[in-house]
Amino acid sequence: MEIKKLVDVCLSPELLNRHHLQHKTAVIVDILRATSCITTGLAFGVKSITPLEDLEECRLMKQKGYIIAGERNGKKVEGFDIGNSPFEYRQPAFINSKVAITTTNGTLAINRSRMADHVVIGSFLNLGAVADYVRSSEKDCIIVCAGWKGKVNLEDTLFAGALIDRLSGSHKPDGDSANIALSAYLFNRSRLLEEVKTSEHAIRLKEHGVIKDIEFCMSVDEYQVLPLLRGDEIVDGQSDSM
Amino acid sequence: MEIKKLVDVCLSPELLNRHHLQHKTAVIVDILRATSCITTGLAFGVKSITPLEDLEECRLMKQKGYIIAGERNGKKVEGFDIGNSPFEYRQPAFINSKVAITTTNGTLAINRSRMADHVVIGSFLNLGAVADYVRSSEKDCIIVCAGWKGKVNLEDTLFAGALIDRLSGSHKPDGDSANIALSAYLFNRSRLLEEVKTSEHAIRLKEHGVIKDIEFCMSVDEYQVLPLLRGDEIVDGQSDSM
Repeated sequence: MEIKKLVDVCLSPELLNRHHLQHKTAVIVDILRATSCITTGLAFGVKSITPLEDLEECRLMKQKGYIIAGERNGKKVEGFDIGNSPFEYRQPAFINSKVAITTTNGTLAINRSRMADHVVIGSFLNLGAVADYVRSSEKDCIIVCAGWKGKVNLEDTLFAGALIDRLSGSHKPDGDSANIALSAYLFNRSRLLEEVKTSEHAIRLKEHGVIKDIEFCMSVDEYQVLPLLRGDEIVDGQSDSM
Repeated sequence: MEIKKLVDVCLSPELLNRHHLQHKTAVIVDILRATSCITTGLAFGVKSITPLEDLEECRLMKQKGYIIAGERNGKKVEGFDIGNSPFEYRQPAFINSKVAITTTNGTLAINRSRMADHVVIGSFLNLGAVADYVRSSEKDCIIVCAGWKGKVNLEDTLFAGALIDRLSGSHKPDGDSANIALSAYLFNRSRLLEEVKTSEHAIRLKEHGVIKDIEFCMSVDEYQVLPLLRGDEIVDGQSDSM
């Protein structure tokens, strides 16, 4: 059977104007750590997560009863309830609560991708659930890597390659960025964590003690959750009755 | 011995403002086909090649006695002496002549990289000569991929990986883009031409019959020429008396 659906990759939000989002399912990825946090939060019973680019706009959500999560340059923002570690989301108190989140790269990538037909949040933690969703859709797919302040990064690119590999039965790589990501993933597939431990992110945040976070974020198929953007909120499409 | 020099990669000229050029040797690459043409031209005795972004500025160089080479969207520009095929440069009439060149991506990448201490033109055709030059320099290196209209492309990324691999004794990869390029190259090293034949460029230009060009541009170490930017001209630094 001929594979007709396509999967494109945008390696940095700075390059989104060179790619097409329309009529596609967009998978947004910011492995370290925004989309890993969103996946973990929804898996642990958070009701919804609202991504906001503006720090002060996010801060004001506290008054509306939201838990506020804020990170800039890898560090928790002062006055916010939590920062950007997935472990912070695994709290019984968060079950059924609403979270507003702002991060250095991830929230920007999500907001710039709203032109797509569907926006899905991807991470290694829910790779299988995302692959199942994309595979069952009739649409082409674009994986949007959040990168780091406009630069291409390793961990998001490796995720893109991993997802393309999982989609090999239904979608074929569409363009050079997709083939680069797939090659980089296939070359490193047996040592993903080791490779990501050499990444700019790991080096940059070493002093913040994020190695435990990185190890967690690189674990594959921990959760079956499927975070979908509905209006301004990300909710679990898996448990959603719609 | 500890390797102290670094090699960074910028995957698209659109991302150059996220990378540092200062105090470095910049290697500019546009495999299909500008930098392969420049390499071939100098190898066959062209005296100098002046890269110009503006088509009309390039056209006017004809009056100054230059051979004018012009390409847009993979096709030769009307009224220009030659287009963007390396084979067009192998003419006895071109020996000791001056060429002015304008292309879709390559000339832009060269001009945006002038902030570097040295600007070298790289291609698979002169990979070894470029590697020798970078290795013998005291400086860090950045490889600037021309891409295609701002998008990341396969062939320039694979060249970046190949050069990093050649520099492994003197320079270590500096950052995620360098590691991605190296992984993509190492994964495809035994089948580079086959992989590039699946690239966006190959698909886009199929109707222009460029497969022969692609095969030639992917051949490694054909020439020992070392194209260096000196002022506004690219000259062969290998035969240069300076």
